[in-house]
Amino acid sequence: MALPRSPLAPAETPRLPDLHGVRLAAAACEIRYKARSDVCLIALDPGTTVAGVLTRSLTAGAPVDWCRTALAGGSARAVVVNAGNANAFTGARGEATVEATVAATARLLDCRPEEVFVASTGVIGEPLPTERLTGALAGLAERLDGGAWPAAAEAIMTTDTFPKLATRRTEIAGQPVTLNGICKGSGMIAPDMATMLGFVFTDAAIPAPVLQRLLGAATEVSFNSITVDGDTSTSDTVLLCATGKAGSPPPADPDDPALAGFAAALEDLMVELAQLIVRDGEGAQKFVTIRVSGAESRAAARRIGLAIGNSPLVKTAVAGADANWGRIVMAVGKAGERAERDRLAIRIGGHEVTRDGLAVPGYDEAPVARHMQGREIEIEVDVGVGGGAATIWTCDLTHGYIDINADYRS
Amino acid sequence: MALPRSPLAPAETPRLPDLHGVRLAAAACEIRYKARSDVCLIALDPGTTVAGVLTRSLTAGAPVDWCRTALAGGSARAVVVNAGNANAFTGARGEATVEATVAATARLLDCRPEEVFVASTGVIGEPLPTERLTGALAGLAERLDGGAWPAAAEAIMTTDTFPKLATRRTEIAGQPVTLNGICKGSGMIAPDMATMLGFVFTDAAIPAPVLQRLLGAATEVSFNSITVDGDTSTSDTVLLCATGKAGSPPPADPDDPALAGFAAALEDLMVELAQLIVRDGEGAQKFVTIRVSGAESRAAARRIGLAIGNSPLVKTAVAGADANWGRIVMAVGKAGERAERDRLAIRIGGHEVTRDGLAVPGYDEAPVARHMQGREIEIEVDVGVGGGAATIWTCDLTHGYIDINADYRS
Repeated sequence: MALPRSPLAPAETPRLPDLHGVRLAAAACEIRYKARSDVCLIALDPGTTVAGVLTRSLTAGAPVDWCRTALAGGSARAVVVNAGNANAFTGARGEATVEATVAATARLLDCRPEEVFVASTGVIGEPLPTERLTGALAGLAERLDGGAWPAAAEAIMTTDTFPKLATRRTEIAGQPVTLNGICKGSGMIAPDMATMLGFVFTDAAIPAPVLQRLLGAATEVSFNSITVDGDTSTSDTVLLCATGKAGSPPPADPDDPALAGFAAALEDLMVELAQLIVRDGEGAQKFVTIRVSGAESRAAARRIGLAIGNSPLVKTAVAGADANWGRIVMAVGKAGERAERDRLAIRIGGHEVTRDGLAVPGYDEAPVARHMQGREIEIEVDVGVGGGAATIWTCDLTHGYIDINADYRS
Repeated sequence: MALPRSPLAPAETPRLPDLHGVRLAAAACEIRYKARSDVCLIALDPGTTVAGVLTRSLTAGAPVDWCRTALAGGSARAVVVNAGNANAFTGARGEATVEATVAATARLLDCRPEEVFVASTGVIGEPLPTERLTGALAGLAERLDGGAWPAAAEAIMTTDTFPKLATRRTEIAGQPVTLNGICKGSGMIAPDMATMLGFVFTDAAIPAPVLQRLLGAATEVSFNSITVDGDTSTSDTVLLCATGKAGSPPPADPDDPALAGFAAALEDLMVELAQLIVRDGEGAQKFVTIRVSGAESRAAARRIGLAIGNSPLVKTAVAGADANWGRIVMAVGKAGERAERDRLAIRIGGHEVTRDGLAVPGYDEAPVARHMQGREIEIEVDVGVGGGAATIWTCDLTHGYIDINADYRS
């Protein structure tokens, strides 16, 4: 599958600094893909805490089941990720694959199996060739390297056309700390908990329960605020691991004021990663930001934004650079949330399109049409009932999406 | 917009018999389209009762608002329909258009405005040129004809590639009665109440409240059980008009045993019409029947069926004739209804694919792949928790859908 790099990809891939307590390695194991890396091992120093957000899918894969259980321990020493096979809907055999993987990793890194986290992405319902994965672990453990972030980000890709990495520096109580994150996405992207795979690491010292609260809040406005096709994966996993090596004082609770900067940096980094997934949405040619305001609550605003962002008719209008705002009205109407039809205000690219439930007097489509020709589309909708606001990011629906999904077994 | 006739269109268009008390006429008014009919007037004899099901969209169009009010009277003398402009999101001007239309029609047919029903389909947010519509009514009233069913069915089309008509004969208490129906569909088709426009007529004598109950029940398993793109129109309208001219005895309540045959015929006719809409879904190349069983309730089964039928990944897999049943598992998982992953059973084209949450032993994809090559795709899913069952009809998602919607302002 040689897909061209998304036109929405960032001009430069950020360079991630080493992060004390994290070492990585990738390998080509031919689990499904040929001639590319498809497995990565991320080793974490003793004392690393972990938090996670997992798919709410009722048909979640075996790795997700495992992570849900292992997260209770709050301690992580390794993350093993493979691309090409989701190890989902694989029954007892899938569970055995996970058990073999964590057992082998625990032996190699001298830790408990419950400290090994696994994530798989790719085709659903096919048995994962366990030995190709477990057989590679010893070699991976020997090549662990604090600088292998790009290799890890590449090994977890499926239909992604570029690797996704982000980094932030912040401080806790005056002590500098680093955040590094990688993720992958592309299709089957919908905001029901974490979206596809995201792994974020920090050298800050943060107890697992605090980490979990911080991750949950940041996930809501990042990975849970994007949509490519409204389809929720069986494998969505976001993990946040804190090695504690930066020497920052461990906060007692998530509301500790010393954490404010860290929480903001975490949210910022996760929004960047989530947007990278949208920028690599299958077939995407345009990046769409949807800002909803005036809703009954933030949750209502989010649902309205998602109704717009998931509407095939809105997404094809964006693809066709058609300033067809009637489809936005339609999507607001179907969202099932309170909206005042006769107070609905829409702006596209900053240009006022409707006000008080009607096209603005003397509406001039020309500047709106020019905006729609661009790569970055801005849609603002005020539904006129309250103070709830939310932002959703999505991409357009193009021939490329059909090409990729009518042929590719992902 | 010269779209080729859908490959899923029926080989023959049914010939509708005259229906005592119903006369029709169509005209080309250039409301949006050139060189084709786009308005139809359907006149109903005095004494005709009416029931209706309207979109639940919160941004419904002015004609829908009008019908909702007028239905309270339970009496109908005319239906005026136009294609090309939905008269939705048009504010006070849209209401004025509706008022002018019903007033002019009431004068021509010597009835009360509340007995005139209106429906509009097409672009949202543009003012409807009222005079083109009202100016055509006198000529239409002069040309009313009991045989003009095909002309009416053609006049209400938008991106439809073939007119949609169906007819049934049944009896009530030994008295033969006829049911005729027309509808239009194509895009913005999702099952939140009636789907786009459907008009069903009978010469049976049935009081409006009874008619409403019969229509509601039949809508649930017909128009509310189809989806093309998950988008709900601002204009969805289904009306059922009963002229009473057949001389059948009027039933006192919907549970009158004499109505059993009529209720079945109505459901049957409405399922045929609903399926015709799917068969003309924008860009459709394959007709998909999704039967869900084993759910907690009928409503739960319906939601699971719709999660499958609305999934872009399932629909593109069907388009690509890819027997990728993992995407069906994914859609079941995201439906939000109870399902036993480890008891999930899937059949495609009658071939067992999964059982007890796993691919069947020795699964042979060849016959399934052959089935996926065909025009009519059958998917059966048992979710293993209860006795709820439902059937959903949909079509595939193809390049044609993108072509139509990235360019066409509908």
